[in-house]
Amino acid sequence: MNIREPNAIDRLVTLFSKLPGIGKKSASRLAYHILDTDASYARSLAEQLASLHEAIKRCSVCGSFTETDPCPICTDMTRDVHTICVVERAQDVRIIEESREFNGRFHVLGGLIAPLEGIHPSDLTIGQLLLRVKQNDVHEVILAMNPTVEGDTTALYLQKLMREEDIEVSRLASGLPVGGDLEYADRLTLSRSFRGRVRME
Amino acid sequence: MNIREPNAIDRLVTLFSKLPGIGKKSASRLAYHILDTDASYARSLAEQLASLHEAIKRCSVCGSFTETDPCPICTDMTRDVHTICVVERAQDVRIIEESREFNGRFHVLGGLIAPLEGIHPSDLTIGQLLLRVKQNDVHEVILAMNPTVEGDTTALYLQKLMREEDIEVSRLASGLPVGGDLEYADRLTLSRSFRGRVRME
Repeated sequence: MNIREPNAIDRLVTLFSKLPGIGKKSASRLAYHILDTDASYARSLAEQLASLHEAIKRCSVCGSFTETDPCPICTDMTRDVHTICVVERAQDVRIIEESREFNGRFHVLGGLIAPLEGIHPSDLTIGQLLLRVKQNDVHEVILAMNPTVEGDTTALYLQKLMREEDIEVSRLASGLPVGGDLEYADRLTLSRSFRGRVRME
Repeated sequence: MNIREPNAIDRLVTLFSKLPGIGKKSASRLAYHILDTDASYARSLAEQLASLHEAIKRCSVCGSFTETDPCPICTDMTRDVHTICVVERAQDVRIIEESREFNGRFHVLGGLIAPLEGIHPSDLTIGQLLLRVKQNDVHEVILAMNPTVEGDTTALYLQKLMREEDIEVSRLASGLPVGGDLEYADRLTLSRSFRGRVRME
């Protein structure tokens, strides 16, 4: 970094480059863009950031981000209380909600089982999930973790637990993405799409 | 956008997605990352953004961003006052300073001539440049605008002006990037690198 760089820009660039997917160059581009833009934009962004952590809490029931506790999904009585969709992170709730495919409740695990990284089942909200399942007479648990090694491990672990409680467990289908091309599918995805092939009647 | 999305996140995502190169998905990823990170990060970022426009001014001499006016480059007497490097935007000063190739003064044009977009020579700081050239006994003006249509137009315009003042004008070399590959060079770059070929003695 050049010693002549104005400090205020430099500090902003350093902060921006801590964000995921933002390298030094992008961070610098963002900082200069904000400088070139009307000051009201920087002010609005500053206000939103300053109040973010006070405005947003975790739902004490499902663990998703919310402004009210419990969250609007957990208090919505038109939603199916007997089906729980288990996700890794709070932001996954948003993604699934946008698909409008699911009308039950959510449960945020807060991570995936990864013993090599020191993340064990006790570090996740699995105890609370079991409690919710028993208290709410849940019929089906849909596992929506990513199809990765950690996602698979966590799914198998939860499947075993839920079976002991005699609860139906399912997992999101894995296979070729819509609009995808066989040519660009990796071997594992192709293998999964074969094993999970759907009969055409 | 889902109506259940917490508003504070939503507002932050909207603001982030106004930044260059940040789409709706990246904006959402950034917002959730900040929520997942310690609140002190969001606070620091908020503070930097809130004070940015007050802390950073334009140098009244060269037009670059600075915390003091005139900027440290314009007041540095160890730098060559008789050579001016002309750039399009204030952030270009940073990029050239980091290369440590240039030890003269800068001049920020504030844009490039683009009649179709309604940007004419009078919209740029060309008058101030001419004044500086005359007042400071400038020997050489180095044009460092990008090798684009607008950059070329602006360079030709300035070349003509400077010639009338009997001042040496040069432009940054255009050609193959270091580490680049002929195979990936576009025709125009290749053609420029031929025309600008350097004799090996």
